[in-house]
Amino acid sequence: MEEKRVIPKTLPGFMELLPGEQILFNQMREKIQKSYERFGFLPLDTPIIEYSQVLLAKAGGETEKQIYRFQKGDNDISLRFDLTVPLAKYVSMNYHELTFPFKRYQIGKVFRGEKPQKGRYRELYQCDIDIIGDGELSNIHDAEIPCVIYTTFKELGFDYFTIYINNRKILNGFFEALNITKKSVEILRIIDKIDKIGKEKVEKELQELELSENIIESIMQFILIQGSNEQKIAKLKEMNIQNELYLSGVKELEEVLGYIEALGVPEEYYQVDLKIVRGLDYYTGTVYETFFNDYRSLGSICSGGRYDNLAEFYTDKKLPGVGISIGLTRLFYKLNEQNMIQVKKSSIADVLVVPVDVDVKEGLKIASILRENKINTDVFSSEKKMKAKLKYADKLKIPYVLLVGEEELNTKKFTLKNMETGEQIKDSLEKIIQKIKG
Amino acid sequence: MEEKRVIPKTLPGFMELLPGEQILFNQMREKIQKSYERFGFLPLDTPIIEYSQVLLAKAGGETEKQIYRFQKGDNDISLRFDLTVPLAKYVSMNYHELTFPFKRYQIGKVFRGEKPQKGRYRELYQCDIDIIGDGELSNIHDAEIPCVIYTTFKELGFDYFTIYINNRKILNGFFEALNITKKSVEILRIIDKIDKIGKEKVEKELQELELSENIIESIMQFILIQGSNEQKIAKLKEMNIQNELYLSGVKELEEVLGYIEALGVPEEYYQVDLKIVRGLDYYTGTVYETFFNDYRSLGSICSGGRYDNLAEFYTDKKLPGVGISIGLTRLFYKLNEQNMIQVKKSSIADVLVVPVDVDVKEGLKIASILRENKINTDVFSSEKKMKAKLKYADKLKIPYVLLVGEEELNTKKFTLKNMETGEQIKDSLEKIIQKIKG
Repeated sequence: MEEKRVIPKTLPGFMELLPGEQILFNQMREKIQKSYERFGFLPLDTPIIEYSQVLLAKAGGETEKQIYRFQKGDNDISLRFDLTVPLAKYVSMNYHELTFPFKRYQIGKVFRGEKPQKGRYRELYQCDIDIIGDGELSNIHDAEIPCVIYTTFKELGFDYFTIYINNRKILNGFFEALNITKKSVEILRIIDKIDKIGKEKVEKELQELELSENIIESIMQFILIQGSNEQKIAKLKEMNIQNELYLSGVKELEEVLGYIEALGVPEEYYQVDLKIVRGLDYYTGTVYETFFNDYRSLGSICSGGRYDNLAEFYTDKKLPGVGISIGLTRLFYKLNEQNMIQVKKSSIADVLVVPVDVDVKEGLKIASILRENKINTDVFSSEKKMKAKLKYADKLKIPYVLLVGEEELNTKKFTLKNMETGEQIKDSLEKIIQKIKG
Repeated sequence: MEEKRVIPKTLPGFMELLPGEQILFNQMREKIQKSYERFGFLPLDTPIIEYSQVLLAKAGGETEKQIYRFQKGDNDISLRFDLTVPLAKYVSMNYHELTFPFKRYQIGKVFRGEKPQKGRYRELYQCDIDIIGDGELSNIHDAEIPCVIYTTFKELGFDYFTIYINNRKILNGFFEALNITKKSVEILRIIDKIDKIGKEKVEKELQELELSENIIESIMQFILIQGSNEQKIAKLKEMNIQNELYLSGVKELEEVLGYIEALGVPEEYYQVDLKIVRGLDYYTGTVYETFFNDYRSLGSICSGGRYDNLAEFYTDKKLPGVGISIGLTRLFYKLNEQNMIQVKKSSIADVLVVPVDVDVKEGLKIASILRENKINTDVFSSEKKMKAKLKYADKLKIPYVLLVGEEELNTKKFTLKNMETGEQIKDSLEKIIQKIKG
């Protein structure tokens, strides 16, 4: 046997957790799912593997390099690298069966052959929602998205985060008005660094692009707009830029802010940020990024935006949409590293039944009653010393141990030990069930 | 654009459901997960991709032919084809971090490049539980498994199914005692057909194996043992077979039956069946199959058994285990085809809020209140005719529609329409929340 032995190992860049961490991960995933369902998003589960031709209809550059692509029989197939392309495929394939606006969530693994490094994964969970309209889509849905982000991160136990909102039409229109659209990519790259390098250096770098002093002044004035969301909108209007795209962007942003307010998201959780663009090709209107207030270095924890046409590579139907994605694997890694995971339950079992010097069947019977009462119950059934039994509960962080001994069976009063406090009570099974559940 | 369009399609053999069916599928998956957790099984989530060398340490024949195996960079990698091999890898890798007995569940997709045909899938969900001991494992766990099967299928809404239990030592010992071990494979293949071809044809086929009349009589007597589980055990003992393996198999089976009884599984749900073997190499003790009583043709819906050593290809630790698997993708397909899905909820949203001739913001505010009360709420926010709004609720099978009009806002009494019965009530939001939740 021995000479044939293989060393068991997992590929680098693939997250594989120990049970205690897996419980926390799953709890986060379930909370995200529940939040998405709270808003009526429908579940979707597309295959991990697709025809390469379908998956790569739009892709190019980095995506193609990173994709897991291979041949199986006659088929050129690939592992999905995001959940948006499969959604586009799905909606165009099932257009006649779906009800629009089509609100779907998908939580699943995607695959990217990136160079593995700390905090970067090749297999990663994405948790996506998108709302797809048939021909048109009200921008009320652009407001629904931040409300979902707010609800989800609150549900995950976080209190200090901010959703930054912009509308790409504003920046694009602004550049149009100044007639500097050709330089917009470079300008945005510079602007994006203002938090790190400061105002002066931004101005200096803009000068290197050979923009006039007037234009640089306009840009600086624009990106430094401060104040409440309302004040920012007012200032954007005051700037008196007569560009159609700009004006329609400002109008949309104002409307979206109004709907977010109606949805009851507290104002400290969302903020207009005119610098946000989220990539340059894909999004066409509202865009979002989300940061922990005290941990901006973690990067955006939830991003997305509005796009004009989801599936133009597959269909001539116009399918505008808006959506976001939470990269759960990366987020979990970062939170875990910073000791920031807020979810509480760290055991699957609520109680461990421990038979003490009685037939183990007595323990099994008690366990069945607890399970009928929807209590997750494990039984320690090996004949070991009490210390070993309690150690099992301790290592699995099971909050309660229920002792079943001769005396307990005679008196019908059972001993429940709280593993955290050490407190022991003796009571009827009915009372103990209430105690564990409460 | 048009000339570049790609036809959106999904690979054959890959299940991709419409939202209504996906809701049912997910509900089944969640019920299975909850049942597994009820018994304290810990979650595990191993990568979809592994080193081929690790995944194929034990495999051969069909498995190697069916596996999705490919090269990425320098790595020879494969998609997992079951959840047992990754478990073996995981336990041997993390042996020192795990608490034994290690009870884990894993629900995830596995990949098999089978020839796609009706009801056969290349990407399929398996829902596995296993209990792994360190060196030894009490057969109380062999009894825990049928209790999990019972609980799970009851939870899924089924009442008429039977878990068939055997112990491979009994048959193997029986063959040893008769000195016909060499022909056991052929004998089992013939025995297995008795339900289809009948007693006489089985006898005839056994004769073709050149077995003596005495031996054939013993075999027939053995496989035709009838009666309650207790009676079967008694008859196995009465057969007076003096073979160590046989006797230890009978003893184990008797003990396991005793523990299953203690766990409260009603006797009509489990039955000793001496013909069951579940493949010839892997299992070493207790084995299980589960059938719907009235749909035996669907095949076993949940199978598994006890094995002596989980991970001998990776470690010299002896890791005995017992486990089962539910092939959810196939099961769902078959149940759906037979119209046998018992789960009820077919909508994600509990209610659709419909603003009627009022600012949609009023609807958004009501929706937020409902969501705070843990009611899954969708809002119909486009300006459409009432008929279109109700059609949306109807198509998504949303059970309630909440109308928000001028009068409702003034009187604070809202109209709730039950979409199934057509019944309408008008009441305070508080009462309506209770109504929807109840």
